[in-house]
Amino acid sequence: MTKPLRIAVAGVGRIGRMHATIVAQRTPGACLAAVFDVAQDLAQDVASSLGVDSASSIDELINSDDVDAIAICTSTDTHVDIAVQAAAGGKAIFCEKPISMSLAEVDRCLTAVDSAGVAFMVGFNRRFDPSHKAVRDAVADGRVGEVRLAHIISRDPAPPPISYIKVSGGMFIDMTIHDFDMARYVVGSPVVRVMAQGAVRVDPAIGEAGDVDTAVTVLTHANGVITTIDNCRQASYGYDQRVEVFGSLGSASSQNLRKNSTEILTAAGGGTEVLPDFFIERYEAAYLLEWQAFVSYVRDGGPSPVPGEAGRAALVLGEAAWASVRSGVPVDVAGG
Amino acid sequence: MTKPLRIAVAGVGRIGRMHATIVAQRTPGACLAAVFDVAQDLAQDVASSLGVDSASSIDELINSDDVDAIAICTSTDTHVDIAVQAAAGGKAIFCEKPISMSLAEVDRCLTAVDSAGVAFMVGFNRRFDPSHKAVRDAVADGRVGEVRLAHIISRDPAPPPISYIKVSGGMFIDMTIHDFDMARYVVGSPVVRVMAQGAVRVDPAIGEAGDVDTAVTVLTHANGVITTIDNCRQASYGYDQRVEVFGSLGSASSQNLRKNSTEILTAAGGGTEVLPDFFIERYEAAYLLEWQAFVSYVRDGGPSPVPGEAGRAALVLGEAAWASVRSGVPVDVAGG
Amino acid sequence: MTKPLRIAVAGVGRIGRMHATIVAQRTPGACLAAVFDVAQDLAQDVASSLGVDSASSIDELINSDDVDAIAICTSTDTHVDIAVQAAAGGKAIFCEKPISMSLAEVDRCLTAVDSAGVAFMVGFNRRFDPSHKAVRDAVADGRVGEVRLAHIISRDPAPPPISYIKVSGGMFIDMTIHDFDMARYVVGSPVVRVMAQGAVRVDPAIGEAGDVDTAVTVLTHANGVITTIDNCRQASYGYDQRVEVFGSLGSASSQNLRKNSTEILTAAGGGTEVLPDFFIERYEAAYLLEWQAFVSYVRDGGPSPVPGEAGRAALVLGEAAWASVRSGVPVDVAGG
Amino acid sequence: MTKPLRIAVAGVGRIGRMHATIVAQRTPGACLAAVFDVAQDLAQDVASSLGVDSASSIDELINSDDVDAIAICTSTDTHVDIAVQAAAGGKAIFCEKPISMSLAEVDRCLTAVDSAGVAFMVGFNRRFDPSHKAVRDAVADGRVGEVRLAHIISRDPAPPPISYIKVSGGMFIDMTIHDFDMARYVVGSPVVRVMAQGAVRVDPAIGEAGDVDTAVTVLTHANGVITTIDNCRQASYGYDQRVEVFGSLGSASSQNLRKNSTEILTAAGGGTEVLPDFFIERYEAAYLLEWQAFVSYVRDGGPSPVPGEAGRAALVLGEAAWASVRSGVPVDVAGG
Repeated sequence: MTKPLRIAVAGVGRIGRMHATIVAQRTPGACLAAVFDVAQDLAQDVASSLGVDSASSIDELINSDDVDAIAICTSTDTHVDIAVQAAAGGKAIFCEKPISMSLAEVDRCLTAVDSAGVAFMVGFNRRFDPSHKAVRDAVADGRVGEVRLAHIISRDPAPPPISYIKVSGGMFIDMTIHDFDMARYVVGSPVVRVMAQGAVRVDPAIGEAGDVDTAVTVLTHANGVITTIDNCRQASYGYDQRVEVFGSLGSASSQNLRKNSTEILTAAGGGTEVLPDFFIERYEAAYLLEWQAFVSYVRDGGPSPVPGEAGRAALVLGEAAWASVRSGVPVDVAGG
Repeated sequence: MTKPLRIAVAGVGRIGRMHATIVAQRTPGACLAAVFDVAQDLAQDVASSLGVDSASSIDELINSDDVDAIAICTSTDTHVDIAVQAAAGGKAIFCEKPISMSLAEVDRCLTAVDSAGVAFMVGFNRRFDPSHKAVRDAVADGRVGEVRLAHIISRDPAPPPISYIKVSGGMFIDMTIHDFDMARYVVGSPVVRVMAQGAVRVDPAIGEAGDVDTAVTVLTHANGVITTIDNCRQASYGYDQRVEVFGSLGSASSQNLRKNSTEILTAAGGGTEVLPDFFIERYEAAYLLEWQAFVSYVRDGGPSPVPGEAGRAALVLGEAAWASVRSGVPVDVAGG
Repeated sequence: MTKPLRIAVAGVGRIGRMHATIVAQRTPGACLAAVFDVAQDLAQDVASSLGVDSASSIDELINSDDVDAIAICTSTDTHVDIAVQAAAGGKAIFCEKPISMSLAEVDRCLTAVDSAGVAFMVGFNRRFDPSHKAVRDAVADGRVGEVRLAHIISRDPAPPPISYIKVSGGMFIDMTIHDFDMARYVVGSPVVRVMAQGAVRVDPAIGEAGDVDTAVTVLTHANGVITTIDNCRQASYGYDQRVEVFGSLGSASSQNLRKNSTEILTAAGGGTEVLPDFFIERYEAAYLLEWQAFVSYVRDGGPSPVPGEAGRAALVLGEAAWASVRSGVPVDVAGG
Repeated sequence: MTKPLRIAVAGVGRIGRMHATIVAQRTPGACLAAVFDVAQDLAQDVASSLGVDSASSIDELINSDDVDAIAICTSTDTHVDIAVQAAAGGKAIFCEKPISMSLAEVDRCLTAVDSAGVAFMVGFNRRFDPSHKAVRDAVADGRVGEVRLAHIISRDPAPPPISYIKVSGGMFIDMTIHDFDMARYVVGSPVVRVMAQGAVRVDPAIGEAGDVDTAVTVLTHANGVITTIDNCRQASYGYDQRVEVFGSLGSASSQNLRKNSTEILTAAGGGTEVLPDFFIERYEAAYLLEWQAFVSYVRDGGPSPVPGEAGRAALVLGEAAWASVRSGVPVDVAGG
């Protein structure tokens, strides 16, 4: 049996803590090496609950001989500095999305990673969801034929705090970015044109913060496929996540999951359960598979399951969507 | 183009009127020749709305050179006399179920039909339902492999009047008889043993009339397959009609239809429509296909789509179910 | 009992023959008065099979005292002349879509109808589909809350002949016109802006005829709702017809129907039936309800179930979609 | 924060190892205290992978002050001895099903538990499945009204080894026992009569071992409800687990889960994924909830989530099913 891959997690807020727990307990071939957070109490708490040490600094993780890989789950503005440093230190890197809100910074990151030749994977977890992946597999193995159109529906159960919206880059960067990656993933072709229309329908405060909360984005791929993305920051019935790809031979679509499979039939009709609450519930299987993919990639080499270029392209598309919303016309993009 | 098959309908109560309308308007290759009913006003009304004549007697229909076939939709106790007469008159016969409530009478009917060599088909409409038929086709073409178990769920939306129950032969004869035929049809093997358990759960008046309203019947087929039948005279949510056949290679099951295909998702979960009201709504497609099958059979010959033996066997099983309920033990049957 | 509404059908090609049959046989309160077609043999054939006379001219129908209403199912370029004449003759009018391919002609028609004060209804059959109507009802009664986004998927099983495409006005006029009406119907607000993107993916000959076969259209409604329409002239798996409306309280969506409700489970997974072949199969219930709505409207008065303005607006949107495809930018519309 | 409940797992074969892992990593409020197995190497392997010690004997676990509860996952014939000893030692007990294959032994176990006053819960994991539990909740809160009929379908993907079948007590004891408990759980009433029919359809070697592999069991509950159970040791398409309860107000049913939610529509129809492989995949959520229920029960007191009587009753029904299969008639039972 080979030695487990020792992964340190930097940043253990909601998503980082989840990653640390999966690495520690549910990722065959991996173990949690240590955790770090600028909030030392939080780091200590997570570390002790998972039976590892809490590092006093990022440097400590990167210089440690007991760490093979770093999971960067800190605040977005710190991602690139940590990634550049980790690359220089020869560590494999798992980086939460978005890599950065600045394309220049993303490029600095990818250049450093390339120079160092370290493994690098972006945390686009939805690629690993068994249902969305089955859509992409049906495309990849030719079962839907030549792709013509795709649709992504992606609605959050509730908007984030206004304070977050003010610094997040807005909906197209903090939320649609997942859907841009999904579009590129399932269609298998880069995007060359973006047309977006946004509106404030959920909460006027979101508009006052300069953001939209409801939008339709239309992507034109290099291969001629047209993809629509439906986003809303609030869906009363839960976290709505669906993907459909339509082609010459058929259509593949991932349906929403439900909290249970029970149906109650009465004189009022049929009743079924609501959707999973949010991403941690909905994408639990995806997160587990994401870590298995990272471990296989670092151990066995080969192309990154989610290369840095995917992270860059999603940011390019987010910026283009904002440009389209502001201009009211389609925007041509390079690198999308 | 061949001359249409001229079909006369005897008995134009609810089911007879429906048959007459289908024959008149929606059965390619057939036309309605005339109708008859002991209630002359009713017959007149149906006849005029469908643009045909109302006969003054069964004899008139049977002696008419303008009638090729008789659909017997009169009250059950008159079926056999009419069938025997129609057979003697050389008419093709469509006979509503049950042929009779007496096995001796059924045998008299089948003997007369055989002697006369006329076409004869029993009105087990559910065999023609596209969903149940797809179950049977999956069995017949080997997709479910060697059959092991089957289940039939058959619940009415509301019980019939007590006056009907008193003369109907009870639930196993007036209602389960369809399911006995379905079991034989989808499993493709006769039944050799019946175990039934009944209860009065819907209305005490049904029990006072000597009947049950809720029952489970277990059939053992000659080929070893075990079929369960779930019956209830009242389902709050509508007419529940499902069939499942399970075998060595898989399972085929017909699901309920809904009044529409719309789903409404809210914070309370998903909501869908109720089931179709009752047999005329649920089995509309089946009735149309039933008449097409009758016309093809009479024109082109071949085995009856629902031979008299099927009607006889269902009655045998209904009687065995009653015997089992009364004795509390399984009952072996011949001819089931 | 009131006298039945006597309806004459002008034009008995595929769709007209279907309407004539429904009027003759399956529309309570109506009867077929006569039929007409420029192909006299065809008219004769339909007339005799439905037991009515075949008229020798449109004039004959319009001047007849035995005709209360005219169903205009002739070729599109003749609709307005017939409608104007029928209006002058005081007949109620059912007009197949599109009313005309020229807005000026549509206006001439609607002006004549208004002046004459006759009943007028456009044949947007999909409004009467129980599933789509349930979506609209859920919007109308507030169950989905304030509407935010809507989606329509509308794919034909196979493209029409190139000869038809050359004179049809192209996909946005001959096909999407139904979806424009559906968008206005389910959202309940006029359209003020159209952005369309089309492509030729099914058959190069369609492109050579100046048309597209695959398109995404984005509509902005006056109330701020954004609707997407997905169209393709060819879907390998059948006639794909879905509508979803998403609002502050929930989402209502009509799913595709299947040819039967049977599922076959094997080691390869679950298998279900294909979709209904095309509009006559898929929208059978809608056509029946459409005629019931027409009869009620003519008898009882009140607003038209599908007023002429709806037919006009759909044409406006079709023209705007073509303008958007050609210019590559969104197009503002009045009267949409 | 309270101290975690320290749980030792005795027996770490397939099911015991799964329990140990869940206790160690995924049960809030609990921790794994130690493991034991007669196969010391196996125990050592599990212990080290979960970061705990491997005990050298059951005694060591029971006498340890660092153990609050014992999970008994050893071979069935050792359950009662361990439980009696653990009860005497004052430990809370989680006991895998069946408690024993001997009713006398079960009674000895329950008497010891009662005398000692320790917490005791049987491992009927399916009660904790969110879908089956939602069926039972719909019954408990009155949404299905007065219960009339229930159905349980429970088919394994593949039969166990013949060597296991020879000592397991046969299908009604090793497999149907879960369904007997489910019937009592969802219907909420004890069983007074059992009629079972079994057959050998999967593998003749199963019959040679004295067992059946396919069966239908009909239970009559004290409240008059009739429940059918469909069992087969082999389903080509996976682990089939469904429950339906039908009552005066409606029907509640738990449907099968699929490996993903994707549907592929082609000219051949719709295709969906297979079912989860087997119990560890299908009932993962149930196992997690089962341990949370155990921890709450031991900490907070109250009735056992699955009391010893439930384990006893299921064994009574298994024995009655065998008696019915052998006699060919229904069997009345006490304590079922």
